[in-house]
Amino acid sequence: MNFSYVLRQLGLLVGVLAVCVMAVAGYAGALWWSGATSERVACYALLATFGLGLVAGLSLWLPQRRREGELGRREALLLVAASWFLGAALAALPFYIWSHLRAASDDGAFSSYVDCYFEAMSGLTTTGATVLTSIAAVPKSLLFWRAMTQWLGGLGIVLLFVAVLPMLGVGGKRLFRVEAPGPTPEGVRPRIQETARALWMIYVGLTVAEILILRMLGMGWFDSVTHTLTTLATGGFSTLDSSIGGFASPALEWAIVFFMVLAGVNFGIYYQLLRRRWGILREDPELRLYLVILAVGFLVVLVGIWNAPIHTTAGDELAPGTGNAIRTAAFQVVSVQTTTGFCTVDFNQWSFLPKVTLLILMFVGASAGSTGGGLKVMRCLIAFKVMLAELEHVFRPNVIRTVKVGKSVVDSELKLTTLAYFLAIGTIFCMGTILLMIFESSESIDVVTAATATIATLNNIGPGLARVGAIENFAWFSAPSKLLMSLLMALGRLELFAILVLFVPRFWRSE
Amino acid sequence: MNFSYVLRQLGLLVGVLAVCVMAVAGYAGALWWSGATSERVACYALLATFGLGLVAGLSLWLPQRRREGELGRREALLLVAASWFLGAALAALPFYIWSHLRAASDDGAFSSYVDCYFEAMSGLTTTGATVLTSIAAVPKSLLFWRAMTQWLGGLGIVLLFVAVLPMLGVGGKRLFRVEAPGPTPEGVRPRIQETARALWMIYVGLTVAEILILRMLGMGWFDSVTHTLTTLATGGFSTLDSSIGGFASPALEWAIVFFMVLAGVNFGIYYQLLRRRWGILREDPELRLYLVILAVGFLVVLVGIWNAPIHTTAGDELAPGTGNAIRTAAFQVVSVQTTTGFCTVDFNQWSFLPKVTLLILMFVGASAGSTGGGLKVMRCLIAFKVMLAELEHVFRPNVIRTVKVGKSVVDSELKLTTLAYFLAIGTIFCMGTILLMIFESSESIDVVTAATATIATLNNIGPGLARVGAIENFAWFSAPSKLLMSLLMALGRLELFAILVLFVPRFWRSE
Repeated sequence: MNFSYVLRQLGLLVGVLAVCVMAVAGYAGALWWSGATSERVACYALLATFGLGLVAGLSLWLPQRRREGELGRREALLLVAASWFLGAALAALPFYIWSHLRAASDDGAFSSYVDCYFEAMSGLTTTGATVLTSIAAVPKSLLFWRAMTQWLGGLGIVLLFVAVLPMLGVGGKRLFRVEAPGPTPEGVRPRIQETARALWMIYVGLTVAEILILRMLGMGWFDSVTHTLTTLATGGFSTLDSSIGGFASPALEWAIVFFMVLAGVNFGIYYQLLRRRWGILREDPELRLYLVILAVGFLVVLVGIWNAPIHTTAGDELAPGTGNAIRTAAFQVVSVQTTTGFCTVDFNQWSFLPKVTLLILMFVGASAGSTGGGLKVMRCLIAFKVMLAELEHVFRPNVIRTVKVGKSVVDSELKLTTLAYFLAIGTIFCMGTILLMIFESSESIDVVTAATATIATLNNIGPGLARVGAIENFAWFSAPSKLLMSLLMALGRLELFAILVLFVPRFWRSE
Repeated sequence: MNFSYVLRQLGLLVGVLAVCVMAVAGYAGALWWSGATSERVACYALLATFGLGLVAGLSLWLPQRRREGELGRREALLLVAASWFLGAALAALPFYIWSHLRAASDDGAFSSYVDCYFEAMSGLTTTGATVLTSIAAVPKSLLFWRAMTQWLGGLGIVLLFVAVLPMLGVGGKRLFRVEAPGPTPEGVRPRIQETARALWMIYVGLTVAEILILRMLGMGWFDSVTHTLTTLATGGFSTLDSSIGGFASPALEWAIVFFMVLAGVNFGIYYQLLRRRWGILREDPELRLYLVILAVGFLVVLVGIWNAPIHTTAGDELAPGTGNAIRTAAFQVVSVQTTTGFCTVDFNQWSFLPKVTLLILMFVGASAGSTGGGLKVMRCLIAFKVMLAELEHVFRPNVIRTVKVGKSVVDSELKLTTLAYFLAIGTIFCMGTILLMIFESSESIDVVTAATATIATLNNIGPGLARVGAIENFAWFSAPSKLLMSLLMALGRLELFAILVLFVPRFWRSE
């Protein structure tokens, strides 16, 4: 294991994060300058984080800066896992320092570091679960930082899974629609850089577009920017306790639905579109299935909520009727399947069928190579085809039928990896639920709360059902539960194996 | 598809069942003769079933008796699936006819054919879930028939999975510890017959031994025989509403624990012992793991119930203490993991940890090739090893490490089949739970009831938790739910694929 290479890259990452914090500190300063006194403490907290981050980053980077090193598989995996855990530790600091600098009379938000770590991990993993009981009590600049952690996390994930890992041969390149050529004469690095630049442009382009559209539809600049940052990352942090429902604007909701759908698409497809390969829109099997599942989920939920009054997250009751029901069904289905987690209504009050539909969509998740989480549509497609083939194999063992997804053949290695992923997610889901039940036994939480809190964090969604429903939050959990759920968020975000390998002794042994 | 062969074999099966019913009718007649007037109606019902079964069997068998036919894979699968569905239809008749012949003043047990079908399927699949709210109201001869369905079902399963299917190359012969030689010059049939005869002798031998031991420990002959029939089949039907707890005899409980453990062992191992291959006791990896899991489950449950008062199924409260706690923990753990389903205490009143331990054991199940259900210890072992290998594959893709179980190599086909089995069980479990929630929405059942009713039937256990707990029954479910659970019992008993293939159109197409 080439630790020096890993440490140097971590140093760089911490440095980049520190610079981002610095930018937000500038924003806090500007707000303070223009009269918002509550921003003063936030500005100090952000500056202090910048300083600490810079020192930490330099002390990781400087000693290793001259070492040459190859980025092998094991280094890549360790770097990826460490990035999220260390990144969250730094991203949590502004919240923590702010909480301890401000006047003592407040509501206690962020007063424990575990809370801050949970919130930061929820940000960087684009989950969107929050420990805040009253978002309005937090200064704007910190809310901006909170939204930005999601945007950065979303960008990181797209770069990682579409540009970096497939080129290194980690994590099934076939899943991500990018030509990953394997070792070429020029080496993989220029290729990675080129792809990464294109993805970065796409991400920024979508961000600018959504900000402008939300602004045009009447949202203020601050809300437009923060909600855009958390939409494209399929994160789901909002600046209102009542989430998107608080804006009570059908046009805004539809606009956000549109961008959530876009964020749940494989970014490899946008990369292909940028190179004018329009055919991919017609041919891509995952894109088609993703839209079909969204449509079916929408119809089932629509039927299920058609006759019921609609309780918005802001506490209003809308009449059941065409427009409201269609918009509500579309918004919640898209928000849950893309694993964004924005809410407009309290879907916890729905009847069983629409609720269980949301639960199933939570497991399915968005497309591979998107900013969304979950099992991923592509994996569900492969697993379904493998199961069908297995079934035929029972009564016709001598017929060898190749399993295909689109035009590419699913080889036996990918088959096994896909099924193993399902089994691993299932096992971790059960273990998470059981552990939450044990950790919270004094709160005597119900199975639905424990199970949906697990899936909402493991699949990076945000809200679940029952006591972690649309109008609830995660503040009431004990510290062990919050740490467990932070681990679940990292596990889900990095598609399990990048974290799980760390627990294999052989991973650490030098060859 | 060679339908005539399948029909002929089904005719034979129905005939054999009819003869068994006739024997029980003789027992009913003897009881009636010796003064038990309530047996009169039962005797008529059994005789009527015998007549109907004979006619049905002959009309299936006679037209096809001269046709020659090979037993191919598809025929075997269709025959297996049809055997259980048709067998249950016949085995349900004595209950149904009895209910409609007797005086109208009774409690309505077995008055609907769906109830009778559920009970018969629960018998033949050795599940043990019952629709009876008051077992004492049913004549002894019918209770004997009810126990006998389990014994026949258990024998059928052992013959099928240890003798027949492996020889035909269906269902992983490596799982069942029998030398399955593939096509030999003499053909597979003599081989199947030889193995089947040995298994039959083992099963009968164990039956005789348990009857004598239970009788010596003070049980009456009737209870000794019926409980032996349902112990060795890991079935769990009892002649008391309070199950084994109703006998309030520690010695009996320990004896039944012993035989439940034996019934959960791969019968292929007994077959090897019969041929004096003692080494298998030391070498068999599944046997070792099966005992280890039982021991660990026992210890966890023991710790979990140590300080709590023990509520027996008979309604008594035992003091928490060494002897009672150890016996209770051992009995319930063994009963649940072997998927027998006998109860001595109301474990629904336990705290979370012991309850969830039982739930996990319900999924693990007994050994492959035993009369028990569940995922099977062998499959859990393979899946665990495959997951570890997959994890190493992530960071060391070029190292090919063979996965071994004991001395035999798990090839890639078995790996995939095993993981597919887990995924299929998981999917069917979720679908079953959701459907039960929908079917019983007017009863507004809770998730725990729906989920454990699904797993208790799918894995052929019997009791679950909450409203299907140790002192409850399945009478209150609606007819659609009962039919669904009958299907789940057959699915689990025949290891899914034998039933699932029936839904694949290609299965029915002639080649």
